[in-house]
Amino acid sequence: MKKLINDPKATVAQTIAGLAAAHGDIVRVSDEFGYAIRSSPPVAGKVAVLSGGGSGHEPLHTGFVGFGMLDAAVPGEMFTSPTPDPIVAATLAVSAGAGVLYIVKNYTGDVLNFETAAELVAAEGLDVRTVVVADDVAVQDSLFTAGRRGVAGTVLVEKIAGAAAERGDHIDAVEDVARRVASGARSMGVALAPPTVPHSGKPSFVLADDEIEFGIGIHGEPGRERHRLEPADQLVDAVVGAIDEDMTLRTGMEVLVVVNGMGGTPLGELYIVFRRVAEIFRARGVRILRNLVGNYVTSLEMQGFSITVLELDDELTRLWDAPVQTAALRWGR
Amino acid sequence: MKKLINDPKATVAQTIAGLAAAHGDIVRVSDEFGYAIRSSPPVAGKVAVLSGGGSGHEPLHTGFVGFGMLDAAVPGEMFTSPTPDPIVAATLAVSAGAGVLYIVKNYTGDVLNFETAAELVAAEGLDVRTVVVADDVAVQDSLFTAGRRGVAGTVLVEKIAGAAAERGDHIDAVEDVARRVASGARSMGVALAPPTVPHSGKPSFVLADDEIEFGIGIHGEPGRERHRLEPADQLVDAVVGAIDEDMTLRTGMEVLVVVNGMGGTPLGELYIVFRRVAEIFRARGVRILRNLVGNYVTSLEMQGFSITVLELDDELTRLWDAPVQTAALRWGR
Repeated sequence: MKKLINDPKATVAQTIAGLAAAHGDIVRVSDEFGYAIRSSPPVAGKVAVLSGGGSGHEPLHTGFVGFGMLDAAVPGEMFTSPTPDPIVAATLAVSAGAGVLYIVKNYTGDVLNFETAAELVAAEGLDVRTVVVADDVAVQDSLFTAGRRGVAGTVLVEKIAGAAAERGDHIDAVEDVARRVASGARSMGVALAPPTVPHSGKPSFVLADDEIEFGIGIHGEPGRERHRLEPADQLVDAVVGAIDEDMTLRTGMEVLVVVNGMGGTPLGELYIVFRRVAEIFRARGVRILRNLVGNYVTSLEMQGFSITVLELDDELTRLWDAPVQTAALRWGR
Repeated sequence: MKKLINDPKATVAQTIAGLAAAHGDIVRVSDEFGYAIRSSPPVAGKVAVLSGGGSGHEPLHTGFVGFGMLDAAVPGEMFTSPTPDPIVAATLAVSAGAGVLYIVKNYTGDVLNFETAAELVAAEGLDVRTVVVADDVAVQDSLFTAGRRGVAGTVLVEKIAGAAAERGDHIDAVEDVARRVASGARSMGVALAPPTVPHSGKPSFVLADDEIEFGIGIHGEPGRERHRLEPADQLVDAVVGAIDEDMTLRTGMEVLVVVNGMGGTPLGELYIVFRRVAEIFRARGVRILRNLVGNYVTSLEMQGFSITVLELDDELTRLWDAPVQTAALRWGR
């Protein structure tokens, strides 16, 4: 195992310490609980938006804390859900009396721990809503999941719900738009090479030199099938095909597309992927109104990519375009 | 070799096509010459700022074309200098009558081809200046270089010179500030694992499982020495030590720090590196005024990092903070 780390047990804490050192104007860390929280104090009357989950997917979620997106993010250990305690502490720290939205990826541990935290803070009188993201069309049920997995669509839920909260929407409206994005987004990924979790020291899975995992999960969970490495365009065609089966791309549709790198893939290759998505969509009469190309929801140094598609309307586009000021997404301000 | 590509020979063209497809509001591609150029027309009276060099270092240089930074970037084939023809064509396309600045990394091919292009456009009456970047303190002379190599300091030269040009500075002033940044920036890198160039299909070098290359070049050129993989903090201490020997960090100094990923390193690890740099500098009384942490000057999927340090003054800080709107750097607008 070759990694830029010190003690494997300190990796998560040192990563978030570095984030706060680099972006102290945006985010700070709770020394006691290890969550990331905006440097600025909570805005009275604003719905608080929180997320969290296992580490190793950076910049998700801590890189999305800041104006226009998350109020706090609670990282767990590597590929491991955070426990309820830091979630509760983060919630109490950001709550501004207007309700709280939890954005939770659909993994059994995350769902359970955020549910427990929600019960605890509800007992203190907070109005907590939870939206579960399950955008991965690859498989039904998986290693750590009942139902579909939550992957890169989570970024879209966090951005759009965060923008709604920032402009002062009521908790009902913030929850509603988060739910719309969560139910609208569709994703699927492919792995060319596995990640290695620091405390295990071994690759999460093994692929032959000419083999890929089609429908990979962000913790290296198995996908639909293994097959031979094909040219990028054929892989993209297959991924878009799987998404299309699930959401039905229609002529005249307007969409947001994310081409997401899994952490170890060069940016140039992600642009090759985006180029093909753009070709397919143009031929199908689907208009890509907005896009992201880069590493947003990663799996340590895994090589591979995922594609996420979300149908846009004027309201979602407006919220997507709204100013955001986080370590990993920044525009319009 | 496992890559998200189609025909290796088409990789550069398809990458840049994807860039333009994703960021058509910022950048477009010359069909004839393959360079990247701003989507907006040249601004009369503005100094044109150009760069270029071998591909495989994305987002450098094409990802830095846009408002406040480059007017055009000329990519060569993978790890190969662009020829003079596209450089000349790009120059004529962006020239707005106020002079042209070439920002060139110090590799023999790049220096030669930009020199030839400069002679050709000078013969057409253009006032062309060239600033060569040679910020890598690792080694004197290298595989493709006489003198020091140009690495991640190039981003700082492009950003700051681009900002000076954007605010309407005279060519003399733009050249001067570019030269100041180029001579002030110091960088050094470490590789944990090699890149693979598509048309070769083989890793550029071989490292044992516990071995690193200290002082690596961005094409996999040898550095100072190979030694055993150490904890991240020790590697950072050694890199900062090498930079310190060359530029002498002083108490009270104000600096910009770039922690740059080589393409295959997870973002979390780069934050662990930044955290250590911040610790060292705090102990030394050096103030990190600005920073970048991420993949900016890469070497395909090479694993590793580099650190760049530039001493700031009010003028450089102002130009760094000026609005920029490119695919890879975006703020303040």
